[in-house]
Amino acid sequence: MINKLMKQIEKLDAPVVVGLDPMLSYVPEQVQKAAFSEYGETLEGAGEAIWQYNKTIVDNIYDLIPAVKPQIAMYEQFGIPGMIAYQKTVDYCREKGLVVIGDVKRGDIGSTSAAYAAGHLGRVTVGANTFSAFNEDFATVNPYLGSDGIKPFLEVCKAEKKGIFILVKTSNPSSGEFQDRLIDGRPLYEWVGEKVAEWGEEVMGDTYSYVGAVVGATYPEMGKVLRKVMPKACILVPGYGAQGGKAKDLAPYFNEDGLGAIVNSSRGIICAYKQEKYAKFGVEAFGEASRQAVIDMIEDLKSARG
Amino acid sequence: MINKLMKQIEKLDAPVVVGLDPMLSYVPEQVQKAAFSEYGETLEGAGEAIWQYNKTIVDNIYDLIPAVKPQIAMYEQFGIPGMIAYQKTVDYCREKGLVVIGDVKRGDIGSTSAAYAAGHLGRVTVGANTFSAFNEDFATVNPYLGSDGIKPFLEVCKAEKKGIFILVKTSNPSSGEFQDRLIDGRPLYEWVGEKVAEWGEEVMGDTYSYVGAVVGATYPEMGKVLRKVMPKACILVPGYGAQGGKAKDLAPYFNEDGLGAIVNSSRGIICAYKQEKYAKFGVEAFGEASRQAVIDMIEDLKSARG
Repeated sequence: MINKLMKQIEKLDAPVVVGLDPMLSYVPEQVQKAAFSEYGETLEGAGEAIWQYNKTIVDNIYDLIPAVKPQIAMYEQFGIPGMIAYQKTVDYCREKGLVVIGDVKRGDIGSTSAAYAAGHLGRVTVGANTFSAFNEDFATVNPYLGSDGIKPFLEVCKAEKKGIFILVKTSNPSSGEFQDRLIDGRPLYEWVGEKVAEWGEEVMGDTYSYVGAVVGATYPEMGKVLRKVMPKACILVPGYGAQGGKAKDLAPYFNEDGLGAIVNSSRGIICAYKQEKYAKFGVEAFGEASRQAVIDMIEDLKSARG
Repeated sequence: MINKLMKQIEKLDAPVVVGLDPMLSYVPEQVQKAAFSEYGETLEGAGEAIWQYNKTIVDNIYDLIPAVKPQIAMYEQFGIPGMIAYQKTVDYCREKGLVVIGDVKRGDIGSTSAAYAAGHLGRVTVGANTFSAFNEDFATVNPYLGSDGIKPFLEVCKAEKKGIFILVKTSNPSSGEFQDRLIDGRPLYEWVGEKVAEWGEEVMGDTYSYVGAVVGATYPEMGKVLRKVMPKACILVPGYGAQGGKAKDLAPYFNEDGLGAIVNSSRGIICAYKQEKYAKFGVEAFGEASRQAVIDMIEDLKSARG
């Protein structure tokens, strides 16, 4: 799947992933109304609203981008109906040929981590049958529990040719509280990055590993160091746009081959219709506003890769 | 909710939480057969099997213990039907008066962490209505992302009088890879423990904070230090029994008031019927085997608290 991701990035000349993180307040009123008229102002109504919102956006952008990254928390908050909307979104994006990165940030140990890996990337056995439950292509994983938390994911990645992105240096202001603390003279995130490189060696694709890393756009100096520490890891870069990361800061995240990073934008794309810049599309054509925002983002990133 | 938890621990003289972590292979054949005959060997069948298994165990032990801790990964692996089984388990345990600790190990930032907090401990708004989705009493949370990940949970805890347990030192063999690394002469888990104490000051119950900590039974020396670093935190202690932690090692986790810790056992209770010690109950009476295992665990822990 890392090979597919890299090929799609090259083919489209677009190292872009769109974060499908639908707050209900992002969903245009006409979409909410339609959903509520069918299901009421209920969790089912909310699930239907975010699913229809996603579907319109995906229909408008799927041919421009290699991947999407649904943030499961935004669905999970609506309970079972929210999880159904997540499942529909994952399935639909895969049907459209998109690589789906489940931003689930799971992390546990042993058989528990194996269960997360099976449920999101692999298969479970029930009697004589096997099923893929959520069936994303990649999942994000938290490293705090060490190798015991990661290795069960590696097994599944190997079997299914899927991948993970491990949190290394996150984009948020307080990420330094623990991640930047110095251990033998080097910050924790570097030690985590070294383990990412080590874990990744076991599961190599053609040029990049099935094991990638999350490094926020908001810390380009650290991105530069981590690019060297993990030369074979695809770096998933959140924090561009709404969180303050600029295209000019992104050059250090890419390798000399012009590959090796994929930049996420969520609000900047899915809420484009709310920006003055895209107001001309009007709220009815929110999907077309998203399409234009994707085109602009791809153009903006070209400057970053020189 | 921390006050309720502490009162129930005192009343029952049982600092015990039972981990409802149902692997399908744990579920006795007769329960699997009944579920599969109704729903087939499907994800729905698996969900029904683990829910019926849980229900029988809970019916047999709810009067002996203050709390249960369902591990969401074991449900999530079966997709939507698994999540429905999780929801039923949480609801049923709350109806029975048990404190429910959702072992979800979530952790993200800003609005995403807020969505997890709302979905698991708080409420979401849909039009003119509000709903509690999964509605556990406590959730476990991963600290790797720093305060930005924790603060949204604190807000919800304050509003709902609920709580969290933050991963500090986990019970697994490789937990030391990052958690034990020295920063200014002290291990990372101590720095995390200090933040737990600081975060916890904002949301105090009568004697303990709404913010607790996870510290594995397998590291009693570290438990001793962490007990002092976080005097007001209830410590959730995994790793007793199947993972190798012994009752005699647990004394350092308790405060002088005999409170301040709650010890988890999962397999040791829910799979008691598979142990030679409880074989006399037979597989049909697996719930009674679990009951006896709870009684034995409570007795065993009395020795730990002197």
